[in-house]
Amino acid sequence: MAEFDPTSHPHRRLNPLTNEYILVSPHRAKRPWLGQTEVLQPTNLPEYDPACYLCPGNTRSGGQANETFDHTFTFENDFAAVLPPPAPIAPIAPHPLLETEPVHGGCDVLIFHPRHDLTLSRLSLADIERIIEEWITIYHKRSSQEGIKYVQIFENKGAMMGCSNPHPHGQVWSLSAIPTLPATEFANLEKYAQSTVAPSNAPKGPQGRPCMLCEYAHVETRFAEDQGRVVFKNEHWVAVVPWWATWPFEILLLPYKRHISAISDLTAVEKTAFAEVLSQITIRYDNLFSCLFAYSMGIHQRPTASSDELAHLHLHFSPPLLRSATVRKFLVGFELMAEAQRDLTAEQAAARLRALDSKHFLS
Amino acid sequence: MAEFDPTSHPHRRLNPLTNEYILVSPHRAKRPWLGQTEVLQPTNLPEYDPACYLCPGNTRSGGQANETFDHTFTFENDFAAVLPPPAPIAPIAPHPLLETEPVHGGCDVLIFHPRHDLTLSRLSLADIERIIEEWITIYHKRSSQEGIKYVQIFENKGAMMGCSNPHPHGQVWSLSAIPTLPATEFANLEKYAQSTVAPSNAPKGPQGRPCMLCEYAHVETRFAEDQGRVVFKNEHWVAVVPWWATWPFEILLLPYKRHISAISDLTAVEKTAFAEVLSQITIRYDNLFSCLFAYSMGIHQRPTASSDELAHLHLHFSPPLLRSATVRKFLVGFELMAEAQRDLTAEQAAARLRALDSKHFLS
Ligand SMILES: [Zn+2]
Ligand SMILES: [Zn+2]
Repeated sequence: MAEFDPTSHPHRRLNPLTNEYILVSPHRAKRPWLGQTEVLQPTNLPEYDPACYLCPGNTRSGGQANETFDHTFTFENDFAAVLPPPAPIAPIAPHPLLETEPVHGGCDVLIFHPRHDLTLSRLSLADIERIIEEWITIYHKRSSQEGIKYVQIFENKGAMMGCSNPHPHGQVWSLSAIPTLPATEFANLEKYAQSTVAPSNAPKGPQGRPCMLCEYAHVETRFAEDQGRVVFKNEHWVAVVPWWATWPFEILLLPYKRHISAISDLTAVEKTAFAEVLSQITIRYDNLFSCLFAYSMGIHQRPTASSDELAHLHLHFSPPLLRSATVRKFLVGFELMAEAQRDLTAEQAAARLRALDSKHFLS
Repeated sequence: MAEFDPTSHPHRRLNPLTNEYILVSPHRAKRPWLGQTEVLQPTNLPEYDPACYLCPGNTRSGGQANETFDHTFTFENDFAAVLPPPAPIAPIAPHPLLETEPVHGGCDVLIFHPRHDLTLSRLSLADIERIIEEWITIYHKRSSQEGIKYVQIFENKGAMMGCSNPHPHGQVWSLSAIPTLPATEFANLEKYAQSTVAPSNAPKGPQGRPCMLCEYAHVETRFAEDQGRVVFKNEHWVAVVPWWATWPFEILLLPYKRHISAISDLTAVEKTAFAEVLSQITIRYDNLFSCLFAYSMGIHQRPTASSDELAHLHLHFSPPLLRSATVRKFLVGFELMAEAQRDLTAEQAAARLRALDSKHFLS
């Protein structure tokens, strides 16, 4: 029987954060591409667009005008997915399978920069640090509101991701319930913390218990520099294409030197290092296919600023592009009905991202 | 405090098959659409396309030629995601978080009909019955192969879903492991079967135990015809926009008169009724926006023809279109990072599908 070769033998890998598997079909990476191609996004946008509802001073569809601003600007979403409290009480369910759970909360839009034509990848480190500070401010503010149980910071970028506006911005949705994916991650982190794992030199979580992500980050940082799944690493943060990556060039970004459960706990040097690694990831993404790379990014951390420290702060980057600036992965068919699947291995993706220039192709 | 109104108050609903929630934001259904639009698929395809690798007699990229055929034709995928046994044995993992599970199996392509220009929605009931018979044949054949633990039948349709070829066809992937989503469903069906639920007139699962889907289908069929979530119902099958639907016009299709755990257990009349409901769903989908509606469809049933009868046979239809033939939903941002979210309620979607003509707009 042949010896196992991870670059040619189909296999499955477990995502321990969700307890879901990914089917890896590395032998298939060279099959011809016959699917739909995407429209290339323009890179020659104006610095100011009078029709953009995120540019400074412009009026939004809700009728309000943005302030003029020099760095970041935050406002409440004009079409928020959740509304302020109080939520009405739940109706009586006609059957236990038809229970309704009313939810309340708030949705913020955070404009990263006044310039319409820039992206996170083209902002200075100082400007990225200002975004980090604004995330922390919103996290504190929303966390302390009555009934808020979870604050989700995210960025959705690119027309390919359904994003309507290239102006650099993110969102923050705060809810009276912990959403499905973070709740699943917390449950699996808790299970790991309670389990007996082999001793290691990795940092530990609260009460000296094992932390799955402290352990995972520790393991990933110990491979030789030209091997493994690390894309970029500095003194405090490591960016890896995780072992269980679903998206072709998915990245998991997390602090690895100590157990940090929220952005509000970062020290000054950890914030500076955070800005550097955010810049390095987004620059490499753009450089991969010489385009403005589409992705969804989300920050997972402890549910609110004051909740317990089980969580290990981490960011997911989920970019759809697969082969070029116009050929994307679709999560459809078998993947929607059975299990996520990929052809390119996580190690191959990491090697490509690692090899890219650390300077933006447009700079 | 306002009384709860499911068409205007944000709330969450639980998907009991996956134990995941969906966030419903019905007040937001009227927000302006600013996202990417899709390319409309042509409806004037030729009956035969010499460049199509699925048309009768044509040569595929693997070099083999399709037979000429009158009804259905099945062949092994030239770029299969899994390979025949034996799989190599697993390598020694450098860490418990980096375990590799080798997998083997086979991938079949099932051409639904010789005509290049037709879709399931435009086939005769007799032709759809032939597809059902072919599904059963493949299910039996793959089930009985050494080491196969699961057979996933699915169809991925439309360029919007990354599908490269409009020629009507589906796929069957058979694996040496039960994939994540069906495994999750089986676990939740098992939990329900073991639980104490209120007595009802719904059919029961094996050993007279409660079956979540027998119960759910029973509940849905008892709403008044112009209410609830039923799209179409006949003597044996019901199609509903499930309470927990993620995709705007998602459909769950299942038999409701008795507990049936696999397509191989269907009686002749149940197969005929199955063909009718498949036709009715796909016709209504096409009629909704007068286009050839894209979707992924998957059959969930007992893992193999000979495994135990816990499963309740059902089909998921996951179509991306939201507002028109060119405006789709994107599962991105908050949805990728936290929890699925929708604006249109399941009841509103069901009412729209129910009201459509049962005759195809191109006929
Ligand atoms: Zn940790
Ligand atoms: Zn049942």
